[in-house]
Amino acid sequence: MAELDLPGIMAARRQAVDAALERWLPEQDQVPPKIHEAMRYSVFAGGKRLRPLLVLLACEAVGGKPADAMPIAAALEMIHTYSLIHDDLPAMDDDDYRRGRLTCHKVYGEAIAILAGDALLTQAFQVLADPSVTGIPASRRLQIVAEIAEAAGSRGMVGGQAMDILSEGREIDRATLLYLHTHKTGALIRASIRAGGIAGGAEGGSLDGLTRYGERVGLAFQIVDDILDIEGSSAEMGKTAGSDLRRKKATYPAILGLEESRRQAAHLLQEAKDALRPLGEAGAVLQALADFVGRRRH
Amino acid sequence: MAELDLPGIMAARRQAVDAALERWLPEQDQVPPKIHEAMRYSVFAGGKRLRPLLVLLACEAVGGKPADAMPIAAALEMIHTYSLIHDDLPAMDDDDYRRGRLTCHKVYGEAIAILAGDALLTQAFQVLADPSVTGIPASRRLQIVAEIAEAAGSRGMVGGQAMDILSEGREIDRATLLYLHTHKTGALIRASIRAGGIAGGAEGGSLDGLTRYGERVGLAFQIVDDILDIEGSSAEMGKTAGSDLRRKKATYPAILGLEESRRQAAHLLQEAKDALRPLGEAGAVLQALADFVGRRRH
Repeated sequence: MAELDLPGIMAARRQAVDAALERWLPEQDQVPPKIHEAMRYSVFAGGKRLRPLLVLLACEAVGGKPADAMPIAAALEMIHTYSLIHDDLPAMDDDDYRRGRLTCHKVYGEAIAILAGDALLTQAFQVLADPSVTGIPASRRLQIVAEIAEAAGSRGMVGGQAMDILSEGREIDRATLLYLHTHKTGALIRASIRAGGIAGGAEGGSLDGLTRYGERVGLAFQIVDDILDIEGSSAEMGKTAGSDLRRKKATYPAILGLEESRRQAAHLLQEAKDALRPLGEAGAVLQALADFVGRRRH
Repeated sequence: MAELDLPGIMAARRQAVDAALERWLPEQDQVPPKIHEAMRYSVFAGGKRLRPLLVLLACEAVGGKPADAMPIAAALEMIHTYSLIHDDLPAMDDDDYRRGRLTCHKVYGEAIAILAGDALLTQAFQVLADPSVTGIPASRRLQIVAEIAEAAGSRGMVGGQAMDILSEGREIDRATLLYLHTHKTGALIRASIRAGGIAGGAEGGSLDGLTRYGERVGLAFQIVDDILDIEGSSAEMGKTAGSDLRRKKATYPAILGLEESRRQAAHLLQEAKDALRPLGEAGAVLQALADFVGRRRH
């Protein structure tokens, strides 16, 4: 096998995902334009497209057609974006900037930002269910809808965000921190990998392997995020370095120290790669992606 | 056919819907309890359950099994409740009371109220897609998910709410008012009727008839709501009478006058009943419900 060009693969997928989002988001001039403008402002604000990438790579790794998984990839990015818009609201984390740009409510006002988030979440499910967009059988698509809804809801991502809000300013223990990370970001990352796998026809051992990979990579991604919040410069992160610390947000480095946090991230990423063994050579890109998560600087 | 006991039918369906919501909402003690408490607080705040009722009656009117439509009925009430929670937020309509009780954010704070709304919307789609809850074929269920998402999103209910926010304090014309009413409340009422019909196997003429019925009843319901806001007492409405006027919200009576508004509501309800002709005797309960909408006092 030739040397793997991960940056090239990521750039190509990212471009395809952006084209899919362009296609499946309502057009900007539809009534009322302000809401559609706000939705697009936040979706096209320079995200990494990590969740869509995981969907597509998981689908390909089990021999599925990436085109079939594309609506799922776009839907997961819509859900991720909605969660960022709502997290940034004054009543939540009260952030003025995200990825170096003004947050949605700073540009469009709080009411429209709340509604833009609501609309993105809703549009995600419309794309997931739209009968015209993919060749995946209906029963498998329903399973994907149910899994993504479970991961995004009150026992998944929203539950993690609620716990985060409820824990602010309090001393939290390691078990709560693990709950936070596995739910606030981990659940949707796990669902992205699983949904891509299911779209590609994965079952049994290969789906189990992808699931374990998704869990380990999701948690490692968040630990690296915590580390970067302390180490990274504001310019690289697009937000103020040390902002978690200042707000007394619970982080891995705060509880375990930097060195132990780094060790845990590396260990999780090794476990993630080990979990891909059932896929053999087909898992090579996902393996490389795990290394990339460990090396990322922003 | 015996005399139709609409109040009895409505009470029985309401009880069954409440039991379904009890079953398909996450339990109150799940982690984090606060969010599940907030979801249940708003869902069990004494709503009329109009949308679930329409789902069930439409399903029955075309010969379907009500049990098959129950998850859809519950999901639509979750979506309706989420929209009320978000509409009541300080950044939106800023309401302290709804149905005579403190609104969600007054009890749980803004952050948890936003998240409880998000979680209810997400839970609705999980129930719609859950493979274990209904005998409806997967392809028909996907169609229902897509229709409900379209109706609830930025080109439906959320679009109506955005237009409402963007129009506040401005002079608005009759076309905009029609847009507001058909989107903010009408879209989800129409989707309720159609989803119930599709769940029951409706196609062609009977589905068209149900759709027209849903559109007319939805608009009439909103016009009657506008009229009651002027006429009703605070006790009957559970909110302050005349509150739309005070906030300069656009209403039918404000633009057309009370008399013409009443005439239009009656006309729409007659059209709704006419649209049920293809169903024959099976449409009797929906006919009676149209009369009920015209007579309601709160």
